[in-house]
Amino acid sequence: SIDAARLLGRIRTLGEIGRDTDGRLIRLAASDTEKLGRDRFVGWIQGAGLEVAVDRIGNIFGIWKPEGTVDAAPLMLGSHIDTVIGAGIYDGCYGTLSGLEVIETLKAEGLTPSRPIVVAAFTNEEGVRYAPDMMGSLVYAGGLDVDTALATIGTDGTMLGDELERIGYAGEHQPGFLRPHAYIELHIEQGPILEREGIPVGAVEHLQGISWQRVVITGDANHAGTTPISMRRDAGHAAARVVTFLRDRAKASNTPTVATVGCMRFEPDVINVIPSRATFTVDLRDPDEDRLREEETALTNFLEILSTEEQVGISVERLARFEPVKFDQGIVGLIEKAARNRGLACRRMTSGAGHDAQMIARIAPSAMIFVPSIGGISHNPKEYTADEDLVAGTNILLDIVRRLATE
Amino acid sequence: SIDAARLLGRIRTLGEIGRDTDGRLIRLAASDTEKLGRDRFVGWIQGAGLEVAVDRIGNIFGIWKPEGTVDAAPLMLGSHIDTVIGAGIYDGCYGTLSGLEVIETLKAEGLTPSRPIVVAAFTNEEGVRYAPDMMGSLVYAGGLDVDTALATIGTDGTMLGDELERIGYAGEHQPGFLRPHAYIELHIEQGPILEREGIPVGAVEHLQGISWQRVVITGDANHAGTTPISMRRDAGHAAARVVTFLRDRAKASNTPTVATVGCMRFEPDVINVIPSRATFTVDLRDPDEDRLREEETALTNFLEILSTEEQVGISVERLARFEPVKFDQGIVGLIEKAARNRGLACRRMTSGAGHDAQMIARIAPSAMIFVPSIGGISHNPKEYTADEDLVAGTNILLDIVRRLATE
Ligand SMILES: NC(=O)NCCC(=O)O
Ligand SMILES: NC(=O)NCCC(=O)O
Repeated sequence: SIDAARLLGRIRTLGEIGRDTDGRLIRLAASDTEKLGRDRFVGWIQGAGLEVAVDRIGNIFGIWKPEGTVDAAPLMLGSHIDTVIGAGIYDGCYGTLSGLEVIETLKAEGLTPSRPIVVAAFTNEEGVRYAPDMMGSLVYAGGLDVDTALATIGTDGTMLGDELERIGYAGEHQPGFLRPHAYIELHIEQGPILEREGIPVGAVEHLQGISWQRVVITGDANHAGTTPISMRRDAGHAAARVVTFLRDRAKASNTPTVATVGCMRFEPDVINVIPSRATFTVDLRDPDEDRLREEETALTNFLEILSTEEQVGISVERLARFEPVKFDQGIVGLIEKAARNRGLACRRMTSGAGHDAQMIARIAPSAMIFVPSIGGISHNPKEYTADEDLVAGTNILLDIVRRLATE
Repeated sequence: SIDAARLLGRIRTLGEIGRDTDGRLIRLAASDTEKLGRDRFVGWIQGAGLEVAVDRIGNIFGIWKPEGTVDAAPLMLGSHIDTVIGAGIYDGCYGTLSGLEVIETLKAEGLTPSRPIVVAAFTNEEGVRYAPDMMGSLVYAGGLDVDTALATIGTDGTMLGDELERIGYAGEHQPGFLRPHAYIELHIEQGPILEREGIPVGAVEHLQGISWQRVVITGDANHAGTTPISMRRDAGHAAARVVTFLRDRAKASNTPTVATVGCMRFEPDVINVIPSRATFTVDLRDPDEDRLREEETALTNFLEILSTEEQVGISVERLARFEPVKFDQGIVGLIEKAARNRGLACRRMTSGAGHDAQMIARIAPSAMIFVPSIGGISHNPKEYTADEDLVAGTNILLDIVRRLATE
């Protein structure tokens, strides 16, 4: 089994890198704080005697290819180390550090793997600073041109390529330079299902579709006291109508559709000025592609009606669009079997969050292992998974990797 | 009559002070750009041979007290030179510069006034950086303690007293040191009525009540993809419901009630995180005090229901509350008469905007003159009043002041 203390210690150490003065964890992709996290991760990779490789989009790889191993396609484990704003310490870090932990354990056991084993930390999984999310793995899988990705402008006006250069993680390797034999990602569920059902292991067989859009509504700035309601072209009010439309629709449906407006900005953002401009994001998700398309169409139609009713201009920019993904049934079966062998209950499930595995699934058989999130809380400092579950999940990963690396 | 070219030139000159690189006019109270505007105004006062006085809250006074004038209560004219963000060039500046123009004209005429004549530029009329609005005149009229006002923290975290010190406008005089015999404020209407009716002069006899509140809604940050709609405590969605509630209510009523949400902020403001916090302002106005109170109560009741329905925390802070004001009927009559004498149509009206006259009315007979705003547009770069109307308004002010200063 794995070294639980080492794994948990590293999760906690990495979880302190990027705390601001208010105690919030913020390690946005390619930022100064994320550089510190990357440096620490690279230090651990090197300490474990693995080779470090960085590709052009900043993905970091720790490669274990013992002397004399055949030059076969590697088994790849991993996740990401960037975070949202006000993050928990597990999202992503658990997958990268457990991947490293599994390799170190197998190395210490004296195993001679039948193929290289690689742990990956993919760039900009969260998509908070630069859209789309899962960018590093998407580029790695050939779904987005690397130069286009590097030219992405972030919410703070920076360009991803410049920032990767600046923090020293614009690597030389071509994304995709190691084509995996299989990819397995261990992650906290980030939702409430496993905890609610008292099941310690999830074998993730699907990942729902994700649609991200940025909407800009333009009206007319005018005086809050002198402008009759009937004469207003209020961009803020129109934006609020979109928020309630999306919520009412999702609530009224009997589907797992979720809709979120996470970012919102009014301009000029002045107490006695009717907003001339509102900019906000729409995150729509559904496990069913047809239904996700229906939701997008419903929004488009609503924006058209709104534009007429409120006499406002509306423009929409697509930030991300990923169809639902079906993971490799073979690996899903291995996860179930490994859980059974360790005497742990396991259920098949769908991921509500996006993950790097969803991108790598385009080029290699992939699947994910989930462990419970207390209260279903994530993207929140209260994100928590019990140590016991973290360790159990990593041991299941260990068992599967040992099996795949010796067959 | 007044020197039209001098007045219009000064309005245009002051209107260029505080333009940012995007061409937006921003001269927030006690900011670096407002200091430049103040300095220019003080220069013109001195150039006209008036005495300059600044009080503790930063109100600027240009005092014309010719040798030998009796020490009577002064006639006061004025307005403000601070602006909103993305302002027009007339709001406030027209009143201060026309006041100075009238004094210079009378001085050049060789008039010996029966009492001093003073032009005032009151601090922080807009209330954008520091609440409440009309702060300088409110303090001057004894409605707010000067030390309390100086301790106000702004939207940018600064303290007004520190900022006045920094820009060199923390004066020595006690606010209220000159108790006016009467106060007259000339201002653009900022609303659509005069233009729509083709009337060049408004005699403002009322000013509607103003209620400003800041609302903070707290929910739970959570993952946009994994959190079922039923488990969300979404502060952003709850805030949007307040915006649509206020608008629907104002629209459905047959009253002149207006409601505006001008400022809105989501936290953490991240695309895939359910907002844990939404902070926004509510500006409610009504010419009728009972109705304004009803609107406030309706909001309070709605927030209570919302708090239960959305399972969110809600806190409300009062930023400003002013009852409707009735101006001095004697001065209103003088405005009508002066317009008649110049052959100009005039109507009595209610001000939708707040003004310094509304505060000074607490300590002296006060009223306002309005001139038309094209399209009813204000707090917007497109704010516009025809030169002819600006000049006509100032000549009416001149006639009234000449009359009051010689009786
Ligand atoms: N796992 C995770 O939180 N990914 C971020 C991308 C998303 O699902 O919004
Ligand atoms: N005149 C004017 O725009 N005053 C600002 C205060 C307000 O009415 O909001």
